[in-house]
Amino acid sequence: MSEKKQLRIGLIGYGFMGRTHSNAYSQVGHFFDSEHSVVRQAVCGRDEVNVKAFAEKWSYASYETDWRKLVAREDIDAVDICTPNDSHAEIALECVKHGKMILCEKPLALNGEQGEAMVRAVEESGLPNLVWYNYRFLPAVTHAKNIVAAGELGRIFHYRANFLQDWTISEELPQGGAGLWRLDAAAAGSGVTGDLLAHCIDTARWINGDIVSVSAMTETFIKERVHTATGEKQAVTIDDACAFLARFENGSLAIFESTRYARGHKALYTFEINGEEKSLFWDLHDLNRLSYFDHGVPGDRRGWSSIHCSDGEHPYAGNWWVPGLCLGYEHSFVHELAEFLRCLDDPSLEKRFPDFRHALGTQHVCDAVLESARSGRWVDVKKA
Amino acid sequence: MSEKKQLRIGLIGYGFMGRTHSNAYSQVGHFFDSEHSVVRQAVCGRDEVNVKAFAEKWSYASYETDWRKLVAREDIDAVDICTPNDSHAEIALECVKHGKMILCEKPLALNGEQGEAMVRAVEESGLPNLVWYNYRFLPAVTHAKNIVAAGELGRIFHYRANFLQDWTISEELPQGGAGLWRLDAAAAGSGVTGDLLAHCIDTARWINGDIVSVSAMTETFIKERVHTATGEKQAVTIDDACAFLARFENGSLAIFESTRYARGHKALYTFEINGEEKSLFWDLHDLNRLSYFDHGVPGDRRGWSSIHCSDGEHPYAGNWWVPGLCLGYEHSFVHELAEFLRCLDDPSLEKRFPDFRHALGTQHVCDAVLESARSGRWVDVKKA
Amino acid sequence: MSEKKQLRIGLIGYGFMGRTHSNAYSQVGHFFDSEHSVVRQAVCGRDEVNVKAFAEKWSYASYETDWRKLVAREDIDAVDICTPNDSHAEIALECVKHGKMILCEKPLALNGEQGEAMVRAVEESGLPNLVWYNYRFLPAVTHAKNIVAAGELGRIFHYRANFLQDWTISEELPQGGAGLWRLDAAAAGSGVTGDLLAHCIDTARWINGDIVSVSAMTETFIKERVHTATGEKQAVTIDDACAFLARFENGSLAIFESTRYARGHKALYTFEINGEEKSLFWDLHDLNRLSYFDHGVPGDRRGWSSIHCSDGEHPYAGNWWVPGLCLGYEHSFVHELAEFLRCLDDPSLEKRFPDFRHALGTQHVCDAVLESARSGRWVDVKKA
Amino acid sequence: MSEKKQLRIGLIGYGFMGRTHSNAYSQVGHFFDSEHSVVRQAVCGRDEVNVKAFAEKWSYASYETDWRKLVAREDIDAVDICTPNDSHAEIALECVKHGKMILCEKPLALNGEQGEAMVRAVEESGLPNLVWYNYRFLPAVTHAKNIVAAGELGRIFHYRANFLQDWTISEELPQGGAGLWRLDAAAAGSGVTGDLLAHCIDTARWINGDIVSVSAMTETFIKERVHTATGEKQAVTIDDACAFLARFENGSLAIFESTRYARGHKALYTFEINGEEKSLFWDLHDLNRLSYFDHGVPGDRRGWSSIHCSDGEHPYAGNWWVPGLCLGYEHSFVHELAEFLRCLDDPSLEKRFPDFRHALGTQHVCDAVLESARSGRWVDVKKA
Repeated sequence: MSEKKQLRIGLIGYGFMGRTHSNAYSQVGHFFDSEHSVVRQAVCGRDEVNVKAFAEKWSYASYETDWRKLVAREDIDAVDICTPNDSHAEIALECVKHGKMILCEKPLALNGEQGEAMVRAVEESGLPNLVWYNYRFLPAVTHAKNIVAAGELGRIFHYRANFLQDWTISEELPQGGAGLWRLDAAAAGSGVTGDLLAHCIDTARWINGDIVSVSAMTETFIKERVHTATGEKQAVTIDDACAFLARFENGSLAIFESTRYARGHKALYTFEINGEEKSLFWDLHDLNRLSYFDHGVPGDRRGWSSIHCSDGEHPYAGNWWVPGLCLGYEHSFVHELAEFLRCLDDPSLEKRFPDFRHALGTQHVCDAVLESARSGRWVDVKKA
Repeated sequence: MSEKKQLRIGLIGYGFMGRTHSNAYSQVGHFFDSEHSVVRQAVCGRDEVNVKAFAEKWSYASYETDWRKLVAREDIDAVDICTPNDSHAEIALECVKHGKMILCEKPLALNGEQGEAMVRAVEESGLPNLVWYNYRFLPAVTHAKNIVAAGELGRIFHYRANFLQDWTISEELPQGGAGLWRLDAAAAGSGVTGDLLAHCIDTARWINGDIVSVSAMTETFIKERVHTATGEKQAVTIDDACAFLARFENGSLAIFESTRYARGHKALYTFEINGEEKSLFWDLHDLNRLSYFDHGVPGDRRGWSSIHCSDGEHPYAGNWWVPGLCLGYEHSFVHELAEFLRCLDDPSLEKRFPDFRHALGTQHVCDAVLESARSGRWVDVKKA
Repeated sequence: MSEKKQLRIGLIGYGFMGRTHSNAYSQVGHFFDSEHSVVRQAVCGRDEVNVKAFAEKWSYASYETDWRKLVAREDIDAVDICTPNDSHAEIALECVKHGKMILCEKPLALNGEQGEAMVRAVEESGLPNLVWYNYRFLPAVTHAKNIVAAGELGRIFHYRANFLQDWTISEELPQGGAGLWRLDAAAAGSGVTGDLLAHCIDTARWINGDIVSVSAMTETFIKERVHTATGEKQAVTIDDACAFLARFENGSLAIFESTRYARGHKALYTFEINGEEKSLFWDLHDLNRLSYFDHGVPGDRRGWSSIHCSDGEHPYAGNWWVPGLCLGYEHSFVHELAEFLRCLDDPSLEKRFPDFRHALGTQHVCDAVLESARSGRWVDVKKA
Repeated sequence: MSEKKQLRIGLIGYGFMGRTHSNAYSQVGHFFDSEHSVVRQAVCGRDEVNVKAFAEKWSYASYETDWRKLVAREDIDAVDICTPNDSHAEIALECVKHGKMILCEKPLALNGEQGEAMVRAVEESGLPNLVWYNYRFLPAVTHAKNIVAAGELGRIFHYRANFLQDWTISEELPQGGAGLWRLDAAAAGSGVTGDLLAHCIDTARWINGDIVSVSAMTETFIKERVHTATGEKQAVTIDDACAFLARFENGSLAIFESTRYARGHKALYTFEINGEEKSLFWDLHDLNRLSYFDHGVPGDRRGWSSIHCSDGEHPYAGNWWVPGLCLGYEHSFVHELAEFLRCLDDPSLEKRFPDFRHALGTQHVCDAVLESARSGRWVDVKKA
């Protein structure tokens, strides 16, 4: 172990995502071999009491209360940006100045313009960079990607995805502040589009290629909420719900939908892809399973198979327990980190994780979606 | 029995739908009480050998080979129109001239213009009229309707429906002719829009009210097919797939999708509705079940319930067997017919079956969908 | 049609089973071709008003109130015995005397001794005979049978089946009388063993061969109920629940369970069979589906497939509608009757329906189960 | 953190279970608060190279190759016994001599006699002791326990459980040695009975109380396998499959089954309990869900609910992520450890984890099952 290269992480932000990433840093070495050893070097937050407690709980060697200090520290190799979306760009550009690798929480930025600046900076610097589109890395999702990438589906006709939640239905829920900045467009950029659909779009583009045009509608069901910062009722400026039609470069059609008003769904992220030969379906609520339909099976035996992706032959699963035993949500982050380390070990390998450029492509789709919702017209998607 | 009033049916067309309707005529009296006794009086088709065989198999008292003759017969009370869509309007108007009640296969007509003429005619005549949007009458679907109609869902936020099939993926499949007129726009009017989405729209409007505007896309994946009539490759003019965004009058958002290119789905008609208090989901492949989410249940017990709608307390189910035993597809037609008879018995009762006017509303949505797909713009739906 | 041979049915008993069989007589000709035309000639019941109404509703040409008269009528070719179990033997023996074919509701008799006499009689007479073990004839069940019969499963290791209901949990429910004779051991012979497990055993023996020994336990949860006949509380003598271990002749192990005290299950009849190469599972609540596991599929694609047995390639399904559309419970009776007619048309064909001898084998298993429950020991099953 | 009491763990055995327990030691402090801080002090195994590598990967401070040395070390507070079953008793007794707390992998011992000695020793010493029956601690399973414990089910009628696998079907699989000692009765004590049914029995007794009598059958499908130690074919002495009927002290009936020959099931551990008012079902393959049937719901809304036990209101779930996100298999060990720590923090609390005495009760059931399978008779279960 002493011979391993260290990857010293500086984490900025220690909310929900700070925990999922810290868990990945703690777990990755137990289950995935690498020449790099991940070191939880420092965590940064504005509230000293809280950030110190977080550092203790997660065994970070130190803490900071000023993110610029953390970014400037020489004993940090990589910065993990876990702050609200409105600060991603600023922090990332500062990281590049200090030569830090960046692991940035999604979405990349508030909009494509910010994202382009970020991509330009990291690509000019040559620094490794990653965006935490974690859902790709669940065994069933990666399995789906591999099956499609092998061309097994033949011509693709349809893609559909949604991400349904129900946690903002109450009018009493305020907007803004620590837990609820996602309801504040100033901090979040958008509502479900950037928060949830961005995940759907990332997976879709990874599996099915580029989206070329979209027609969208959005809605804000509850028009005013008390803002935590002011105590006053203010107009809600995010999209509570968004649905869009899309056309992919490969000629397939798609529908996407997201909402926080689908009673009964906590985190129903699903996607389905229909090809000439096969179809695939996946659902975050039952994340170990991939539904698989193979038209090549004789007619009287055809049916949707439920593949429990927990065998040694499934992506990542063999690194954990034995066949049939379930993995959970947080494993996705461990796997994404393992992919990042794999490419640090050998930069010549194909990157299987989303970098800033891929995330910019997703940002461009989000921007087109929001523009279409405003204009009521089909909008072409800018290429990343 | 001898005291019952007779309802003497003349059936025009004896294909797939002719069989489902004949089954309803045969079965309804075994399971539903009525003052009317349904008599299979005559069936009409152009091929005498075939129509005669059909008449024997289904115990029709007579047969015709000219539909005008059948419509003119004095011993016919009601005409059932089971022909391809392009002849619905002409036959229906002739029926009105002869004072016949009409039971018309869906969609009502080739387009709204035809439909309006049909509605005008039947309403002026006062003749009972019905359109066979049969799926409403499955116990689980009617149960869903009743729950929503009672206001139990509170404010409605979302509706989504799709109808996915996979039977036209092969390029070898011809268009036109007896089994395949649904691929020929001249006979069918449209592709999946009129054939499949019309069902989704009928149910949606019944349950969730009027649709006010739509944005659609359509695609024809296979551009040319041999036409059965000519033996030549001809352009395919129907829509193979159609998806649309919609806004309902009640403020809820919707997505609808249909295709015949969703590998793995034979007849996956599903709908879901999300309200403030409850959500409902249904699936034709498991038609006895209604998925039901009640937010009023305490938090640690909330979950989607799978209601097997086969109890005496569920709509129609008590007329059949005992709790837990499944009904099938064809029962939907029996139930629709039972509703028609119920209103014949007592015309003062609320009609629970779709009449020509309701079907015209569905036709207007289909027309708007097709226009939007052509124009790439949102289109307002004409009121029926 | 006029050239068809008639099969004139005399139905004795017109309760729940009388309806399911009458439905089969009405429907079979609409969906299955045969040289025989089934004629609803007479129905028999002790209550003249009721039996007459039944005859009218189901178009029986006549009715009787004395079953011996019906059996003696010359215009009856086949007698259908739908009475409580305690009269099956007597009626059947009388039918043989009058040279009638017999279609007998299951279970065959009150016990093996009665059953042996019945088998002896019908076999000596050479008269066609059938027992209504209808569940075999659902497409998914027949499909399972065919797959196993083809040897596709390899060596069989396990069989398990259960039939769970919950309708007798209330202490207020009386025993005896028209609707509730199944709770009265004098009329029914036994409780769940003969009523429900007999179905499980019939299917098991059909698919997996003979059962050689059993170890059982039974329980009567509610010890006394008011008897409908006397108005008095009387000891309940049936088994409310029964579970047993079994060994099949082919070396496989089995567990069977039935109860009317499994809250939440209306009619949960399931079976599963595990072989070296494949496994199968089926469930009456979702009767159109067969769950299918094929170990021959590559490891990363293996999973349980849900085959919707509604395609033309599935048993019986092609005689009904189009792919994807569900059949229901009552279709099982139609199919069993169609198999009976097929063998009437051509007696040289292999019988796929259960005759008296097969039903006797099932009766012997039931007898062994009840004896084992009494003695607390393993009991060998008598061969039929 | 410095003020926390340390719990210094010495782990003996570092196979599959060694990894799951080490993961619990690493994770528990990140998600559960305690006055105790768990320290990975030492790990012990006979192969120095391997045990050293394991110690590095899992950050154990030291390692040993002689378990007696580890047990004797003064810097160890608690010993975790992860060795094959035949050494549990000897190691545990030695731990007691040295005053160590014990966390012992299940089953407790090779048989009840060993188990009784172990219970006697730990109870006389007053040392905290735990057995790793981890499945209790999945949120859905604990939720089920709590619902039953609250008396919500009313009178219990039925319990059924099984644990089905398919990994030993091949005749080529050897017995004995590191990965396969579970196939060797000398090391394992029994086959599926102690390995798998023990889990089912532990959960059953926890939820539904004591089992009083059993009737079992076992089978060894493959009679001879090459032994890894000798390279020779030797008789297989474990049970490949075991099924048993049981009666609980509360009057309910049960069936249990386990096998490694159920093709298609990797780790299908399920249980169901039917009470007068409610029923519950759970399945390890979908471990986040509890199926819940509440008869108190109005008749037309009754159905099995699928509760995704991932909300803050569900046991343990609130310590992890946000509603809707799945946990996995390994979380069960973290939760069991958290319960152990909770009682270390405050020994006056009710123990929710299985101690040696509870595990002895389970051992007695296993012994009775094996005796019944040998004798072919019902066997009464000894009280623990």
